[in-house]
Amino acid sequence: MNAELINIGEELLLGLTENTHAAYLGRKLAEIGLGLERQVLVGDSMDAIAGAVGESLARSDLVITTGGMGPTSDDKTVEAVAALLGLELRTDRDVERGNEKLFRRLGKPLPNLVARQARVPEGAQVLLNEHGTAPGLVLKASKPYRAKWLVILPGPPRELQPMFEKRVLPILEKEYPGRRILEVRVLRVADLGESLIQERVEEKIRAHFPGVGIAYSARPGEVDFRLVTENRTGLADQAARLAREILGNDVFGNGDEELEAVVIGLLRKAGRTAATAESCTGGALANRFTNTPGASDVFLQGWVTYCNESKSRELGVTARALEIHGAVSEQTAREMAEGARKRSGADYALSVTGIAGPDGGTEQKPVGTVFIGLASTGETRVYKECYPMDRWTFKWRVAQRALNLLRLELLSKKVP
Amino acid sequence: MNAELINIGEELLLGLTENTHAAYLGRKLAEIGLGLERQVLVGDSMDAIAGAVGESLARSDLVITTGGMGPTSDDKTVEAVAALLGLELRTDRDVERGNEKLFRRLGKPLPNLVARQARVPEGAQVLLNEHGTAPGLVLKASKPYRAKWLVILPGPPRELQPMFEKRVLPILEKEYPGRRILEVRVLRVADLGESLIQERVEEKIRAHFPGVGIAYSARPGEVDFRLVTENRTGLADQAARLAREILGNDVFGNGDEELEAVVIGLLRKAGRTAATAESCTGGALANRFTNTPGASDVFLQGWVTYCNESKSRELGVTARALEIHGAVSEQTAREMAEGARKRSGADYALSVTGIAGPDGGTEQKPVGTVFIGLASTGETRVYKECYPMDRWTFKWRVAQRALNLLRLELLSKKVP
Repeated sequence: MNAELINIGEELLLGLTENTHAAYLGRKLAEIGLGLERQVLVGDSMDAIAGAVGESLARSDLVITTGGMGPTSDDKTVEAVAALLGLELRTDRDVERGNEKLFRRLGKPLPNLVARQARVPEGAQVLLNEHGTAPGLVLKASKPYRAKWLVILPGPPRELQPMFEKRVLPILEKEYPGRRILEVRVLRVADLGESLIQERVEEKIRAHFPGVGIAYSARPGEVDFRLVTENRTGLADQAARLAREILGNDVFGNGDEELEAVVIGLLRKAGRTAATAESCTGGALANRFTNTPGASDVFLQGWVTYCNESKSRELGVTARALEIHGAVSEQTAREMAEGARKRSGADYALSVTGIAGPDGGTEQKPVGTVFIGLASTGETRVYKECYPMDRWTFKWRVAQRALNLLRLELLSKKVP
Repeated sequence: MNAELINIGEELLLGLTENTHAAYLGRKLAEIGLGLERQVLVGDSMDAIAGAVGESLARSDLVITTGGMGPTSDDKTVEAVAALLGLELRTDRDVERGNEKLFRRLGKPLPNLVARQARVPEGAQVLLNEHGTAPGLVLKASKPYRAKWLVILPGPPRELQPMFEKRVLPILEKEYPGRRILEVRVLRVADLGESLIQERVEEKIRAHFPGVGIAYSARPGEVDFRLVTENRTGLADQAARLAREILGNDVFGNGDEELEAVVIGLLRKAGRTAATAESCTGGALANRFTNTPGASDVFLQGWVTYCNESKSRELGVTARALEIHGAVSEQTAREMAEGARKRSGADYALSVTGIAGPDGGTEQKPVGTVFIGLASTGETRVYKECYPMDRWTFKWRVAQRALNLLRLELLSKKVP
């Protein structure tokens, strides 16, 4: 049973936008056993869209398109598909009403062009969009095509993803009963490279579970270690338990659990609170904490003390620390963490001071140098790291390390 | 003159890895006038690779493949292409010697499998890989194919990108002399939907510049308005100037300028400084400010006053504001901004307080409600907005609005 994905959008071909749909939908389809066999990206013209959709419908069991559903003149997916399949367009009253309601809620007038997005091919099942104005569409395909269904989705990820998960997945699970279900277990590991993970676990997994597929996907400071079998034998689950035993607390979560959510959960369970004091990460750490719903129960406060004066004034960092040791130093990180903990009244405070770059490095403290402080009752520890990466990745990586240090502290494991 | 890109790799179809090649090569090819017309992603089988390469060679002037060049048995690009074009494989001594040298430098024994990577199709121009063991290959195509050249590149971005820029681009510029250079102008617009932009500008652009292509790509609170012509006529540039005239200060930048970088630039130019005080955005606004290198010249400090106590203690928000008006109110936003401005000594302070959700909404103040304060010399204004979106998007959208309010203030345009 195979699926094809057609991404539509001139901006993707011109390289102005990254195509995130292929990875997202590839993963989601694999999970329900509808392997993605081919993904195609075409521009916005009627010919290109109809051509690609026709080819894919002839070749695959399921075809999904993304994009080209906006209100403006360059969005032609619906027209192209209707022309290809010989369908008339009709105005869908539910879409129309939903869009009127959305704009009322936003307190803004409904633009005339949005009316275009309520035009759908006859016979299409319409999926209302909770986060935008373009509906999704599900169309039954028939001879001469091989495909059974054509699913048409809007382009913005925040519209597409909830629509796919809530509305499309249940349809696919019902309409493609004979597919081979993959059993996928993902262990999420922080602060440990994929080759080190492989060295520690792969041989043992292969010896005990020879039929289980193993894969790694690495991002800065984070690796997803994946175990896969077909047809829900339970073996991937058993292999994951063995891997978890070997890796211990290096595993921070399962599936798609985020590190910040795990930390918030541990704080809540322990009845503890946290605060942050950031220099070089400039709010990226507090931003991670507060990405989790309910963070306000345990996250009290953060400071972004970007200039030296604010480090002294807000957190009580001493002139001695700043002048003798420097703003990027173990001593400053220590005083920032202790000041933040004292002033906020939180049980734990994390501090960060470093050199994000691209400028500001020295031979002693090159770009990427960072000190991370963790203050708790009666003790403050400071960790020195070096992450010579682009500015955005550096900020993310440092926040990752800081969150993981707090997680390990909460698990009462001192890290070296 | 058009190009097609074929990405090869099972891990991309399974969604285990993001495909960054399409955007990178799309951009690079557009710059030299070899527009990417189609990008295809296929798995690792000989049939899938040969099928896709054959189709693309028949349809396009230039075909580029990426991936499937590794040393292991699942890498089959070279064999598939050789079989398709009826070419024998030979061992390339330069590749062999280069790989031996590379492993000597790493102080590691040369793995047996690497020898496979020195096998290349006869007649291929070989591009040595400075960052890995797989060479690039350039093959002349001929009848029955339309394509003139087939370029085969290794998959890892850090191998592919320098090879493409140093070795492939010069070949393409020489071999495709008649190509049509695209002239692309992008205007970036904040806080205005794509349909409203179209209503304001599209008719006028079409009337004055009928040959100029128009496209929109929208993200929350941000639209790229794109004007495209062929052959560097200067018309896209003229059309962009007309659009900029019509849209005025709604345009915040060109090309790939980020809003935060524009705001930092305006602050620097004006010799002014800024601070932030955030509740519901939890550091996302400070994080945007500090994404720009050199932000420390003008961004002094940020507070994430997540709990009510910290709003009073750090920023002097009154009990009256918190108890009578509530933490999410115009009055609290006003006092947060004024407190942050006074305490930091910055010229401008932005404050944010709202309900990020998913819980915490009321009928009066539903999820998505937010008050944004902007304090400057002698005046504080507060803006009420509603962005009923998922938590992550809400934070991004609010930061976008806050940055744009400061930008408009710096341009001395009062907004309604």
